[in-house]
Amino acid sequence: MSKLWGGRFSGDVDPLMAQLNQSIRFDARLWEADIRGSQAWTQALAAAGILSDEEGQAILVGLDQVYDEWANDDFHLQPADEDIHTAIERRLTELIGPVGGKLHTGRSRNDQVATDLRLYLLGASDSLKTHLSTLQRALLDQAEHYIDLIMPGYTHLQPAQPVRFSQWLLSFFWMLQRDCTRLEELRRRIDVLPLGAGALAGTPVPIDRQALAERLGFGQVSMNSMDAVSDRDFVAELLFWAALLGVHLSRLSEDMILFSNPSLGFISLSDAYTTGSSLMPQKKNPDAFELTRGKTGRLIGHLTGLLATLKGLPSTYNKDLQEDKEPLFDAIDTLEIILPVITGAILSLTPHPDRMTAALDDFMLATDLADWLVGEGIPFRQSHHIVGEVVRLAEEHACTLRDLDLSTLQSVHPAFKSEALAVWDFERSVEQRNTVGGVARAAVQQQIHSARALLGPGD
Amino acid sequence: MSKLWGGRFSGDVDPLMAQLNQSIRFDARLWEADIRGSQAWTQALAAAGILSDEEGQAILVGLDQVYDEWANDDFHLQPADEDIHTAIERRLTELIGPVGGKLHTGRSRNDQVATDLRLYLLGASDSLKTHLSTLQRALLDQAEHYIDLIMPGYTHLQPAQPVRFSQWLLSFFWMLQRDCTRLEELRRRIDVLPLGAGALAGTPVPIDRQALAERLGFGQVSMNSMDAVSDRDFVAELLFWAALLGVHLSRLSEDMILFSNPSLGFISLSDAYTTGSSLMPQKKNPDAFELTRGKTGRLIGHLTGLLATLKGLPSTYNKDLQEDKEPLFDAIDTLEIILPVITGAILSLTPHPDRMTAALDDFMLATDLADWLVGEGIPFRQSHHIVGEVVRLAEEHACTLRDLDLSTLQSVHPAFKSEALAVWDFERSVEQRNTVGGVARAAVQQQIHSARALLGPGD
Amino acid sequence: MSKLWGGRFSGDVDPLMAQLNQSIRFDARLWEADIRGSQAWTQALAAAGILSDEEGQAILVGLDQVYDEWANDDFHLQPADEDIHTAIERRLTELIGPVGGKLHTGRSRNDQVATDLRLYLLGASDSLKTHLSTLQRALLDQAEHYIDLIMPGYTHLQPAQPVRFSQWLLSFFWMLQRDCTRLEELRRRIDVLPLGAGALAGTPVPIDRQALAERLGFGQVSMNSMDAVSDRDFVAELLFWAALLGVHLSRLSEDMILFSNPSLGFISLSDAYTTGSSLMPQKKNPDAFELTRGKTGRLIGHLTGLLATLKGLPSTYNKDLQEDKEPLFDAIDTLEIILPVITGAILSLTPHPDRMTAALDDFMLATDLADWLVGEGIPFRQSHHIVGEVVRLAEEHACTLRDLDLSTLQSVHPAFKSEALAVWDFERSVEQRNTVGGVARAAVQQQIHSARALLGPGD
Amino acid sequence: MSKLWGGRFSGDVDPLMAQLNQSIRFDARLWEADIRGSQAWTQALAAAGILSDEEGQAILVGLDQVYDEWANDDFHLQPADEDIHTAIERRLTELIGPVGGKLHTGRSRNDQVATDLRLYLLGASDSLKTHLSTLQRALLDQAEHYIDLIMPGYTHLQPAQPVRFSQWLLSFFWMLQRDCTRLEELRRRIDVLPLGAGALAGTPVPIDRQALAERLGFGQVSMNSMDAVSDRDFVAELLFWAALLGVHLSRLSEDMILFSNPSLGFISLSDAYTTGSSLMPQKKNPDAFELTRGKTGRLIGHLTGLLATLKGLPSTYNKDLQEDKEPLFDAIDTLEIILPVITGAILSLTPHPDRMTAALDDFMLATDLADWLVGEGIPFRQSHHIVGEVVRLAEEHACTLRDLDLSTLQSVHPAFKSEALAVWDFERSVEQRNTVGGVARAAVQQQIHSARALLGPGD
Repeated sequence: MSKLWGGRFSGDVDPLMAQLNQSIRFDARLWEADIRGSQAWTQALAAAGILSDEEGQAILVGLDQVYDEWANDDFHLQPADEDIHTAIERRLTELIGPVGGKLHTGRSRNDQVATDLRLYLLGASDSLKTHLSTLQRALLDQAEHYIDLIMPGYTHLQPAQPVRFSQWLLSFFWMLQRDCTRLEELRRRIDVLPLGAGALAGTPVPIDRQALAERLGFGQVSMNSMDAVSDRDFVAELLFWAALLGVHLSRLSEDMILFSNPSLGFISLSDAYTTGSSLMPQKKNPDAFELTRGKTGRLIGHLTGLLATLKGLPSTYNKDLQEDKEPLFDAIDTLEIILPVITGAILSLTPHPDRMTAALDDFMLATDLADWLVGEGIPFRQSHHIVGEVVRLAEEHACTLRDLDLSTLQSVHPAFKSEALAVWDFERSVEQRNTVGGVARAAVQQQIHSARALLGPGD
Repeated sequence: MSKLWGGRFSGDVDPLMAQLNQSIRFDARLWEADIRGSQAWTQALAAAGILSDEEGQAILVGLDQVYDEWANDDFHLQPADEDIHTAIERRLTELIGPVGGKLHTGRSRNDQVATDLRLYLLGASDSLKTHLSTLQRALLDQAEHYIDLIMPGYTHLQPAQPVRFSQWLLSFFWMLQRDCTRLEELRRRIDVLPLGAGALAGTPVPIDRQALAERLGFGQVSMNSMDAVSDRDFVAELLFWAALLGVHLSRLSEDMILFSNPSLGFISLSDAYTTGSSLMPQKKNPDAFELTRGKTGRLIGHLTGLLATLKGLPSTYNKDLQEDKEPLFDAIDTLEIILPVITGAILSLTPHPDRMTAALDDFMLATDLADWLVGEGIPFRQSHHIVGEVVRLAEEHACTLRDLDLSTLQSVHPAFKSEALAVWDFERSVEQRNTVGGVARAAVQQQIHSARALLGPGD
Repeated sequence: MSKLWGGRFSGDVDPLMAQLNQSIRFDARLWEADIRGSQAWTQALAAAGILSDEEGQAILVGLDQVYDEWANDDFHLQPADEDIHTAIERRLTELIGPVGGKLHTGRSRNDQVATDLRLYLLGASDSLKTHLSTLQRALLDQAEHYIDLIMPGYTHLQPAQPVRFSQWLLSFFWMLQRDCTRLEELRRRIDVLPLGAGALAGTPVPIDRQALAERLGFGQVSMNSMDAVSDRDFVAELLFWAALLGVHLSRLSEDMILFSNPSLGFISLSDAYTTGSSLMPQKKNPDAFELTRGKTGRLIGHLTGLLATLKGLPSTYNKDLQEDKEPLFDAIDTLEIILPVITGAILSLTPHPDRMTAALDDFMLATDLADWLVGEGIPFRQSHHIVGEVVRLAEEHACTLRDLDLSTLQSVHPAFKSEALAVWDFERSVEQRNTVGGVARAAVQQQIHSARALLGPGD
Repeated sequence: MSKLWGGRFSGDVDPLMAQLNQSIRFDARLWEADIRGSQAWTQALAAAGILSDEEGQAILVGLDQVYDEWANDDFHLQPADEDIHTAIERRLTELIGPVGGKLHTGRSRNDQVATDLRLYLLGASDSLKTHLSTLQRALLDQAEHYIDLIMPGYTHLQPAQPVRFSQWLLSFFWMLQRDCTRLEELRRRIDVLPLGAGALAGTPVPIDRQALAERLGFGQVSMNSMDAVSDRDFVAELLFWAALLGVHLSRLSEDMILFSNPSLGFISLSDAYTTGSSLMPQKKNPDAFELTRGKTGRLIGHLTGLLATLKGLPSTYNKDLQEDKEPLFDAIDTLEIILPVITGAILSLTPHPDRMTAALDDFMLATDLADWLVGEGIPFRQSHHIVGEVVRLAEEHACTLRDLDLSTLQSVHPAFKSEALAVWDFERSVEQRNTVGGVARAAVQQQIHSARALLGPGD
């Protein structure tokens, strides 16, 4: 009998019910965390005198053997293995006999599964952090490389002011930097040991929970058994983190897709990150970015779904909590593939300076003209209005701003002088914005410097 | 070369990008729909003179062979089979040679995948409808069987008025009946053929799309090619349908879980739909209902995720739309297991009339007392206030309402007479409510009758 | 004392609790529905012999007076008016004395509020339908007017094939047509009278609910009292409907914003639907479309929020249901303003044929070239590959496709003949696609004809 | 002319468009932040030599006057005041003349609104933190007061093991403690000054942004102008924080509603936090908790909605971002009322020890019996099974566990001895669980001690 709980039951479980209840198909990935947790628990039971040295040793050796079977892809699931905990205890007992039945003393699956999940996530979050940093480094490298390129900056997707291509790349660096900080912070809430909370009331075994936490590498122990078995804040936090990171990547993707449209044509993507059409031979589609943008919906959905599930619950453990794992694992798997793909696409893109230049138009310098009037003592609100009239004039003449000669400008307002015509220079415009965070070369270089310092040395 | 689109590309696709792009791991379930669609397309091409009879015959025979391979679990996927369409065309060409390359004439994966998905969903929605009706029938059968049982009716989870257990069961029948109607309605929007829309502009082949629709069993053809390739309304509708059905099942589950708590104890669940604890030997947990309640979060999340994905798109086909399938399939799979499990749990539950009776208290008849005063000509608003004072009196005396004798009632208001004491009868209270939809026996029987008529004869 | 329920309570309600509980600030808009419902209920009570003719008349007259006060903006709310029902019954009793206290006989706020909300929504849904039809008509009118314009059709936002501007406009007509059908269908589920369900068990008054329904214009009566007081499916449905309509409008907006970017420049928006910048004098931003796109998030959020609220509930009425109104009213208000604004923006836009033409490039005819090869007997899969190589050749030569002369084409494949060069014609390409739903002129005209028939005559 | 941007426009804005575009109805609450921001900006412009001392002084005096008008509820909005920034600049110019038009030099509404919102949120988050701490203190006080009460602990809402009422109360303390930590962390991401980022490219005025930040009390300055104007991470974070806090309060509410049901009856709520029924005189409903539970749906919806809005955007400022404020303000307002109401309800509840005792049954001691067998050397897995059979025996005999005499126990397994019967003691069971976080008195006292230390001294 491999179920962990059959004693009081007389009827069989309905086969569909058994299938509904089974979590092994998705919690199998916790095998390593489960075994590590059981090993530490064995040592704790031994230290508390619940297991003899001999019993403890037998269990540890058995668990090592189970570990090797998993590691060597040699573990054989049985139909009755409803979850990873059942599977591993079942196999342990097959290997070492009834003494294996002593492992679960003073422990519940409620605290066990919470421990496994946290152990797993500590590892997963470190891996995600590395992927994130690698993408940040790619953005920095490209920003440094292309600092000379000036492109149209849009607001409302309408031409606004010229900016450096690097400034655009770096804007994503800072979004990801916030993601990085958030990940570090939420990791501290993963880093709490629930083992010892039992089903909900704590364990009657006089375990040293602090020592147990240290053995497993946890920074803290949980402080309330009823909270410990039902706390899934850390899952919700990780899903929110993933969704917000997804939003950032989606915005990056939206820009990339747009910039790849030939009417703008600011960048070309490498063949390695595009695909073609089964029908249209000319097609080269920015799939990497479309999939990233699309998958952000899934990340938002996972968060919403988990919050809706948690919201409806009374306190302590309820079976509904089993629903925490699939969205979590899917979010991790999604980011584990998206992040390196985006990194690769960023590193292999080709910018087209000529197309950026072609899309710069004089209207993007209208603010500079207004600023010039401010220098003549005209209040900005008035100078803004004057230049608005200049813009209207140019549109009526179907010409661009620099096509209007001085006398035409002066017909709008007498303050215009020939020096005003110096504003028709995109480089000048960019260099004007030299405060912290601005688009002038020096400000961008300073920004790259600060970013590199935050990121630390590469590998 | 098995990719459908390689001609213009020089570089290789990045391996992670290829993995990100692959949909075969979840769209393989469309194999039957894809082959049926291709067979019909072959016949349409032949009818339009694009294929000779011989060519058409060769392709049809080849597709039959591919069909058999899938049906016999004998189809071997290749690493480069990025999706089900690629896999099937690749295999077809292996089997029948270059003529297989004529199948995709005038067709795009954009209209092909939309066709496949709709074909698949027509079948899946019929299956879901059957599961739904079966659950409705179970509710009706139990309602009919237990019509004598009177239980506390709650609002705000506080005792309100006595109701029949059957009324409670039937309330879920009507929720599911609305789900049933919604499913029939949305099915009409699945039932539209997109094939012939090409990539986005229609097909240059003079196909008879109406005949094609009839051959595949579709009720209508799509009217605009740009809409046809990007319309995923039907997926969103099905996900909303699933989420709202989930909400109904979650509310049922919430009640079931509550009624199974021993302080209420109104029902016991069969062992077949409960599970135990790894730690606590006495436990018998209502997992079937907890999982149903929990999985409703996932259904809400799938809906939210898809809407978020769709919202961000420009028109026509974008690769983001590939994200439609996983939530859809998961929602269907979830309901395909939940619905029969809930049906089984309903059919096998045991109500406990004694515990229902124990939870009926006289305060639930306070409205009846107020109604009695109304019969004496006292405006309801006043009688409500009088009975409120009676209730307060009983609480102060720590007694129940029927413990207050007539003179005590009269001390609150002189209109009370001995006939008023007849209201202390739960059966009487229930029988008073005999309008359509009420809890009196006759009204409930009429309701069951109407419900059976809607449901039609069983299998 | 104006509260409807004070009798049994001894302590006062905490002021913040009273504020939390109050719904009058958002449910006041139900005043007309509430009075109409109460009038019908009065007539039903009189018909059932519960009210004398005189009493009934007094209440009806009083309700008319309350109606006039609301209609003339002369109704004065009191601090204790916790909801619209309390306010109106309070005022009625002020006007006609204690007989006003007879109105609430056999009725509960639970069935009353559900009735009010449904009555209100029947009106609101009709208004929304009119706005929707007006927008559809605008799209049709513009599609008819601009049928000659050919523009680039995109998939993946990459050039795909040429299409008519009308086809693009019409694609949104069909999305809205589905919204229209969905609205008609869900309206049938609003159109159900809950009044008579009481608190949860039905009414003890022998009301003719069918007659009551007819008097209020409802098509059906609810069939189960416990379901009737807690059914909010129709609210969820309306919110889903709004969210999906929002998705359509968001996709339209995304295109509009993109087409307004000067690098594409396919359209200009009227000044009436754009705004400027406080800083940049040249700016003219497509705010109407950005706000529409942005507000779709809110519509998705309202749906998600309500589903999460409903999911967590046990059956029958729970106070949580009070949360149904704010998202519902906000969704309606949002669409009541967005729909006419979008209509105005569509009707006042200016397309720029020269910019559409400038964005058409020969690569969008690659499929036509492949189709030409098919006509020479080459299987499509092979011809696709051949043209892919032609595309690559053109890219290597940095020229466009029609710059490649026949001998160059023949160097890729000998099947090319001079007739192949006829494919370099965008009008020809469009006219090739003449099946139902295609972009050829005749197909588009047929589509407009069908659409007009569905829409019916205008006002 | 009060609009800030009219110069280049010729047509009027459509009235509905103007209404759609207006944000003043919800952003008016930013008035104080807006004025403080403008005052600091004035000083920065003066320091940079852009304003003369006289001009700077005139603007500062004018802004003070505008401030007083707002503070004294004496500010009169004009129809053309589309947002709070327009309203305040318009009024300033009315008061001090054209020099007011110099205020907006080098600034955009894009960086201005982001600054205002952050300033506002710094204050709002401090207020929320205080409310949170007050609720935590209430939980601690009640936990300390009622440490003697033992109640049934549930998992799956089925009796599990006895726990202290205090442990249940404290479980919510720790959830809120995590909320508190998260709030402190996210506050650091609010605490970043965007002013100086201009529209998207930085300001051409040589402002000392670090000094500006210090003057406004910000801890940091934004590092990238394009990111600064479109970063709404902090809004999303606050909405997630609110949603997760909502989930905790919803779970508390679910328990409270359940415990108030008379079949459990563990607690009574004060009249101050309950309401009655318009129909049923006996009703006393836990509305405070139902509304809290219900409003959590709204909080989840706000988060989802904002993420969906953000996800769809290209980078920098888009008008869609105007949609950030309503959900944010509503979330804050919701919590500002819920938190003190819940605090009041917690402080005024009455626990009923007799009803808690009545709900304790011997089956909740089954684990203790199994643990006793473990002490006899029987592996836990086997002892669990043995006790499962004991449970089944008791159920078959329709008796409770302590009704089974020793010989009956021994008939199941010979290891049972009379000492085993000592386990039938709920106090003993609780005291067994004395590790960190357990339910033994000492462990709970230690937990309270740690909690108080975290919370710091009260006010």
